[in-house]
Amino acid sequence: MLTKEFNYKVVPNGVCAAEGFLASGVHCGLRKNKNKPDLALIYSENLCQAAAVYTQNKVKGAPIYVTQKHLKNHQAQAIIVNSGNANTCNANGEKDAKTMCQTIAAQLDIEESDVVVASTGIIGQPLPIDLISEAASELKNQLSREGNDQAAAAILTTDTCQKEYALSIEIAGKTVRIGGISKGSGMIHPNMATMLCFVTTDVAIEAALLQEALRAVTDETFNMVSVDGDTSTNDMVTVLASGLAENPLITDSQSAEYQLFIQGLYVVLRELSRKIAQDGEGASKLLECQVTGAKDKATARLIAKSVITSSLVKSAMFGQDPNWGRILCAIGYSEGDFSIENVQVDLASVKGRATVCLNGSHIAFDVAQLEEILTEDEIFIYVDLGQGQAKATAWGCDLTYDYVKINADYHT
Amino acid sequence: MLTKEFNYKVVPNGVCAAEGFLASGVHCGLRKNKNKPDLALIYSENLCQAAAVYTQNKVKGAPIYVTQKHLKNHQAQAIIVNSGNANTCNANGEKDAKTMCQTIAAQLDIEESDVVVASTGIIGQPLPIDLISEAASELKNQLSREGNDQAAAAILTTDTCQKEYALSIEIAGKTVRIGGISKGSGMIHPNMATMLCFVTTDVAIEAALLQEALRAVTDETFNMVSVDGDTSTNDMVTVLASGLAENPLITDSQSAEYQLFIQGLYVVLRELSRKIAQDGEGASKLLECQVTGAKDKATARLIAKSVITSSLVKSAMFGQDPNWGRILCAIGYSEGDFSIENVQVDLASVKGRATVCLNGSHIAFDVAQLEEILTEDEIFIYVDLGQGQAKATAWGCDLTYDYVKINADYHT
Repeated sequence: MLTKEFNYKVVPNGVCAAEGFLASGVHCGLRKNKNKPDLALIYSENLCQAAAVYTQNKVKGAPIYVTQKHLKNHQAQAIIVNSGNANTCNANGEKDAKTMCQTIAAQLDIEESDVVVASTGIIGQPLPIDLISEAASELKNQLSREGNDQAAAAILTTDTCQKEYALSIEIAGKTVRIGGISKGSGMIHPNMATMLCFVTTDVAIEAALLQEALRAVTDETFNMVSVDGDTSTNDMVTVLASGLAENPLITDSQSAEYQLFIQGLYVVLRELSRKIAQDGEGASKLLECQVTGAKDKATARLIAKSVITSSLVKSAMFGQDPNWGRILCAIGYSEGDFSIENVQVDLASVKGRATVCLNGSHIAFDVAQLEEILTEDEIFIYVDLGQGQAKATAWGCDLTYDYVKINADYHT
Repeated sequence: MLTKEFNYKVVPNGVCAAEGFLASGVHCGLRKNKNKPDLALIYSENLCQAAAVYTQNKVKGAPIYVTQKHLKNHQAQAIIVNSGNANTCNANGEKDAKTMCQTIAAQLDIEESDVVVASTGIIGQPLPIDLISEAASELKNQLSREGNDQAAAAILTTDTCQKEYALSIEIAGKTVRIGGISKGSGMIHPNMATMLCFVTTDVAIEAALLQEALRAVTDETFNMVSVDGDTSTNDMVTVLASGLAENPLITDSQSAEYQLFIQGLYVVLRELSRKIAQDGEGASKLLECQVTGAKDKATARLIAKSVITSSLVKSAMFGQDPNWGRILCAIGYSEGDFSIENVQVDLASVKGRATVCLNGSHIAFDVAQLEEILTEDEIFIYVDLGQGQAKATAWGCDLTYDYVKINADYHT
């Protein structure tokens, strides 16, 4: 997705990097641990163009339905998010999600319909809405340009670390910032959207183009991540654009300015996606599978995702075992248009790179070198099909004892 | 698949239960442990009608290709199987698989093309074919009516127990026996066929009807099993019919006789499938998901498989945790034609049954009772969609520390 000429600078402050955005995070009591904030607010000083993509799970969290209604006019000014409870499969879910929007809108003196709402946590337990309502004024009072840290912490569940990333680019002589925060560790197998991710930018862009950019970029980033094959009910990626960078309004998807913006958005979402894969429940290694030489993009995507989703490949990576037969097996059961007779598989890390399969068959390799390569935390699996020009990349993580521990014996 | 009137008797001797069949198993050295037989032979005293279904993985083991050629005439008289090496993704794979058939055919004085060959074990390691050739005469000499036990042992890999089942039914006043052995523990997510399973019967039936029956029954049994979502490269189910029961030849799929036979075959394959799910790598519990009330069969099948394949559901069952939200999530991301507003989910075991979700939402339930239900080794998950008459059942197992241990740190 990136051209060779694309330049950007990494900047601090995640969701507060762009002009006009404040954030906060507080502990309202949904999570038992008082040191863990569980309610986040992102606020823009002016009304923003807004875009979002959502989970394709037929079971959807109540906040998804409310947010979809609120974004019909492609505008928003605030995002409220709680962790500790997904507000999904509850009798009063939509009512509670609306109450969250009403309460914070009243505090901020904005329209209820300009609030995006999201929830993450356990499914099927009634949401203690009073805890949220009582915390609304503190949440507003804590808003600041330095609030990114608290907001990034408040949206986490089983995540072991905060996930934030921001960069700046130049568009038509103006500095444009794009930054975001994300969460996600288990129930990660996004389909058309993903886990919670909130992006802010000060670019000036038409809402329809913002939506187009978001959909194109999530297809190449969040939709190429899998931790455990389970597509969540509450996945959502939202982007708010304040326009305060004062670049000439982007109105044409063929323009150089749009191409710059979409590349910046790609880098932000790719980094936030990788952080989710890396922090997959129980994960000790990030796996990146790059498929090249496919006849078409769809086939490349299916194979890349199949490899990083295979429990047997994931277990082998945890065991630092160069068992390429399992990789070939996962390629083989992918749907898509390909044959395997030309396939080459390489394994790599910062320790080096080695071919483990050539023309679909066993070749001799140095086992000690391979085992050394696989000791690293980031493992690259290169699959070349030798049948065309299409390519795709997917991200996942290894399958460890801790994944089972976290999911068999968890407590909120 | 079963009518209320269907009667059968369980009988001993698995693959040797039917008239005319002998079996043996020896240690030829493919596996390091000398106490584990690793080469099996099933032999019929007369030429049989034969049918088979195979893996849909695009990467197929060499034995699959050789067996497909040999069964073009729908006849076979012997089956040779090794464990410890899958003979897949090897440069000389087909040549070695052919050599296995030639060698045993010469010993048995039958046609090479009347031998079915199968291999299971590690992918991508050259097969030490000499070990097999050298053991061929002993394999033949050991053949006996009591050889089922040795053959059932010789086809195992990471399985913790032998899998055999046989029954007898009455067809047109004659006693017909159907029995089989199977293996499979990891890389289990059959698609159109499954792990290794060898069935023998003395029924007299036309080859085309035998194939039709096998395909219909595997769709309802092996194709509804998943241990880890990985479809193997070597899956195969074969049935040999000797005709020695002397029932009038079955030639009509609408006949009462065919209906009796297919029900008998269903019970045998269902029991062998369940044994594979129950013995899934690291498994401590068998999971059975029964979906009812679907609009169509395809939807019922997709949902049942989605539930028993979900890593999060599997981990929760290991943890004896009635986390029905994860079940609803797995229903929701199934493909198929359904809505979830009427869905009811019950959990059950021999300790009792309790509803955990009604009309797609949380209902109050007795947590202590649920936890007691989930202590058992066989857990039933009932999903009623309330939208039609179609139903399906799928089998799986829980996800445990031992699954990771076996697959991260295994040795042959």
